[in-house]
Amino acid sequence: MPHLSLEYTSNLTNLNVNRFLHELNRVLVDSGQFEEIDIKSRAVRFDDFLIGLSPEQRAFVHLKLSIMSGRTMETKRELSGRLLERLRELCESDVGLHVQLCVEVLEIERESYSKSVITS
Amino acid sequence: MPHLSLEYTSNLTNLNVNRFLHELNRVLVDSGQFEEIDIKSRAVRFDDFLIGLSPEQRAFVHLKLSIMSGRTMETKRELSGRLLERLRELCESDVGLHVQLCVEVLEIERESYSKSVITS
Amino acid sequence: MPHLSLEYTSNLTNLNVNRFLHELNRVLVDSGQFEEIDIKSRAVRFDDFLIGLSPEQRAFVHLKLSIMSGRTMETKRELSGRLLERLRELCESDVGLHVQLCVEVLEIERESYSKSVITS
Repeated sequence: MPHLSLEYTSNLTNLNVNRFLHELNRVLVDSGQFEEIDIKSRAVRFDDFLIGLSPEQRAFVHLKLSIMSGRTMETKRELSGRLLERLRELCESDVGLHVQLCVEVLEIERESYSKSVITS
Repeated sequence: MPHLSLEYTSNLTNLNVNRFLHELNRVLVDSGQFEEIDIKSRAVRFDDFLIGLSPEQRAFVHLKLSIMSGRTMETKRELSGRLLERLRELCESDVGLHVQLCVEVLEIERESYSKSVITS
Repeated sequence: MPHLSLEYTSNLTNLNVNRFLHELNRVLVDSGQFEEIDIKSRAVRFDDFLIGLSPEQRAFVHLKLSIMSGRTMETKRELSGRLLERLRELCESDVGLHVQLCVEVLEIERESYSKSVITS
């Protein structure tokens, strides 16, 4: 915890995944809410997608941040807002694309969450 | 919002992803609950899966609909039921397959959700 | 229901997906909480990921168990703990990797969940 999931449509051909993950993790580190090593981020590209029903060129990025339950709404809003702000700066829209950027905050149930670390 | 995720096992070789996404989005548009352009749908195929422990030919489709919190249970049930109905009609089971179809409705926390649109 | 999702970073090259799914499903069957055929498990490998900001060799496994709402916290904790225990036994860490293992329990809203079975 936290877990970050960067989900995006494959027509965003300018999206540099490694850079995005680095910059978004940086936002989380800078928030002071998390230990650096605990931030586990991944990207998922959707090759099959459909936005509405129209043949127009549309794309989306859906960022999901899962954090332990118990944080205040103010903290969650702030994290969500900062991630969206960074996402906006990072996104150089492809010519002719209509891109929806979304940030969702999910809560992990603390009492049933288990974790362990293996080092070799 | 809404976000739709069509997740399915790769042994469903007759599943036409583009058609499914179009038909499911159509159900959401026709419900009158959402703006057409807001419906963001994606498909995810699982090449690695296991249903129970048996070597039998089994498959599943797991449809996840994420909508903003605040809608009534009646509305959520209706959306879930309609999507399942359409899914049933669309699925032509492969010979010999036992297919489980599931529709789950998830709520997005409205207060911490952020969104922005980029057009170029 | 239940749905199990085994998500892992692609640098875990020793991870045998089929064996993991079988062993984790076995844990769920042995718990006595579920019908064998209802256990729908899938694996997702992340080729693009970043843990924190450091260039160190880090990996993670994120196991998500989605069950119907209504079970006691004790049951959820027990399921989570047993899955983590099995995961630990299964994971033979690659040399030099720091691996975080996480098990999250999610609740599916019972009232809006729809299901159907097709057999051919």
